[in-house]
Amino acid sequence: MTKPIVIAVDAMGGDNSPYKIVKGISEYIKNNQNIHFRIFGKKNLIENEISKYSIKNEYFEIIECDDVVDNNDTPLTAAKKKSTSMWKAINDVKEKKSHVIISAGNTGALFVISKLSMKMIENISKPALAALWPNKNDMNIVLDLGANVECDEKNFEDFAIMGAALHKALFPNQESRVALLNIGSEEIKGHETIKKAYQSMDNKKNDLYEFCGYIEGNHIMDGDVNVIVTDGFTGNVALKTAEGTANFISSELKKALSSGLIAKISSFANISNLKKFKKRLDPRLYNGAILLGLESPVIKSHGSTDFIGFANSLDVCIKTVKGELIDKIKKI
Amino acid sequence: MTKPIVIAVDAMGGDNSPYKIVKGISEYIKNNQNIHFRIFGKKNLIENEISKYSIKNEYFEIIECDDVVDNNDTPLTAAKKKSTSMWKAINDVKEKKSHVIISAGNTGALFVISKLSMKMIENISKPALAALWPNKNDMNIVLDLGANVECDEKNFEDFAIMGAALHKALFPNQESRVALLNIGSEEIKGHETIKKAYQSMDNKKNDLYEFCGYIEGNHIMDGDVNVIVTDGFTGNVALKTAEGTANFISSELKKALSSGLIAKISSFANISNLKKFKKRLDPRLYNGAILLGLESPVIKSHGSTDFIGFANSLDVCIKTVKGELIDKIKKI
Repeated sequence: MTKPIVIAVDAMGGDNSPYKIVKGISEYIKNNQNIHFRIFGKKNLIENEISKYSIKNEYFEIIECDDVVDNNDTPLTAAKKKSTSMWKAINDVKEKKSHVIISAGNTGALFVISKLSMKMIENISKPALAALWPNKNDMNIVLDLGANVECDEKNFEDFAIMGAALHKALFPNQESRVALLNIGSEEIKGHETIKKAYQSMDNKKNDLYEFCGYIEGNHIMDGDVNVIVTDGFTGNVALKTAEGTANFISSELKKALSSGLIAKISSFANISNLKKFKKRLDPRLYNGAILLGLESPVIKSHGSTDFIGFANSLDVCIKTVKGELIDKIKKI
Repeated sequence: MTKPIVIAVDAMGGDNSPYKIVKGISEYIKNNQNIHFRIFGKKNLIENEISKYSIKNEYFEIIECDDVVDNNDTPLTAAKKKSTSMWKAINDVKEKKSHVIISAGNTGALFVISKLSMKMIENISKPALAALWPNKNDMNIVLDLGANVECDEKNFEDFAIMGAALHKALFPNQESRVALLNIGSEEIKGHETIKKAYQSMDNKKNDLYEFCGYIEGNHIMDGDVNVIVTDGFTGNVALKTAEGTANFISSELKKALSSGLIAKISSFANISNLKKFKKRLDPRLYNGAILLGLESPVIKSHGSTDFIGFANSLDVCIKTVKGELIDKIKKI
């Protein structure tokens, strides 16, 4: 048997923690073995939750932490509190006791502490925040989503490498196809930085991904490419705008489908199909974000997700380790 | 009787022109009087269309143009062809023969020729492209959508003025509430330019609009603000991402609602409600874009819209003139 993959889990972050964290773990190990969880947080609370599920001892150990990062803590305040479950979980990876760290806690704190604690990958100049974003065929990786408000062309090239490496780790049977998010598909469109990145990426061939030029916002979900590179400002606005649009349409649709008796009855008949639709767009499938560029990936689960969303994020943790994400980034 | 509002119409741009242009005009004047159309294009084609509807002579005159701007023309090539329907329609406004110009043709050409032909409004340093974008209560104005890839804080302030003036012209009974599109709602978020714009706008009070700080992408459609200011790169990506998301959801929903016999029957029963939903999101309602900052607004109707979409854009033309859009911008 190969050695287990070790995950450092900050059990105290996000809503309903450690309840959903432990339930997510118990759910995940039903179908996945050879994993070991190092769980950081209030031991009595965690043990209490663990006792509810039949999680075998070999799967976990609990590391008592007498402090937690609060959602109102600024990143720098949080970074000073060195006995929090978050700080200790991050340091566990730094000390090579775990392969990867996951938290559903304060995003800013998680990324700042990670950047302060861990080394950067040598050939990467700035870390970036990546997330999954559905497309017609399967799933995109989109980055940066807010770690870097301003970027130069080297950053864009780094993001392409990291995004493609993550894509390959999560979807090993697919070709990674990278595009730069721009306001037109012609070479002359966009600002200077993006044009320089285009030129440079178009001239370099590599084994990791195929460079597919520019993509416009309305084609992100077409499935022609699967790694989309942008600066943190644009990426953050694009992702949140897509979320807002989806929410708007859902609420308008709900209004339309529930007004009047006939509508109510026919919606009911339609419910299994609408459920399929909801499942396809279930945000828990795309839960969280991944900070790339440090010596280990840092997985952020949404604070508001439930145990299913958290279990999906655990799957991302495992795949980044199994798929040798960091080695793929270093190799290029 | 007050003097009619005179609209210069480029009748040759977009799909199915001049057919949809003339039909759009005939549709619009059913409920709107005191308008005069100066229609630019191939006289025989236009006359042929006009003969199909009972448009009275007082409503229009046709100005023969022996050339048209092609969709493949670059803006600068198009700007040299001075006998096109587009060039002549723009110049008609410059020569004060019309109050406002509308075209469904080549967007780049329309804006470049307009910028070359018309004067800028004195207190505005760069023109911007604005569009309507639905929100939960009614409608947002969002700008810039691509005219300026890079912006400084003065541009953002100008966009706020122009956007609020357009909002007031189109929705005279509403308060105009302006926000800057950013990646967080706290003052410290975002890049330097946006922070400087925030500071400056927060300190200046004005009679045109209320400044409401930052807004994130996921709140664009909440209806708490109704004028959203951003640079042309971010705005273009955000608008197209929203379009792409809406298309993706519609096609997934269509798949879900049409798989299986029961689904087909119950969808049929639901059809009137789904129609209401589609109507609420009908892109023809938000058709086109408005170039602001020149001595006259330039209205761009989508090339692919039909006569109903074109008629809606005619309504925007009329309201910008009636609502004294340009005076509102100059006054501040």
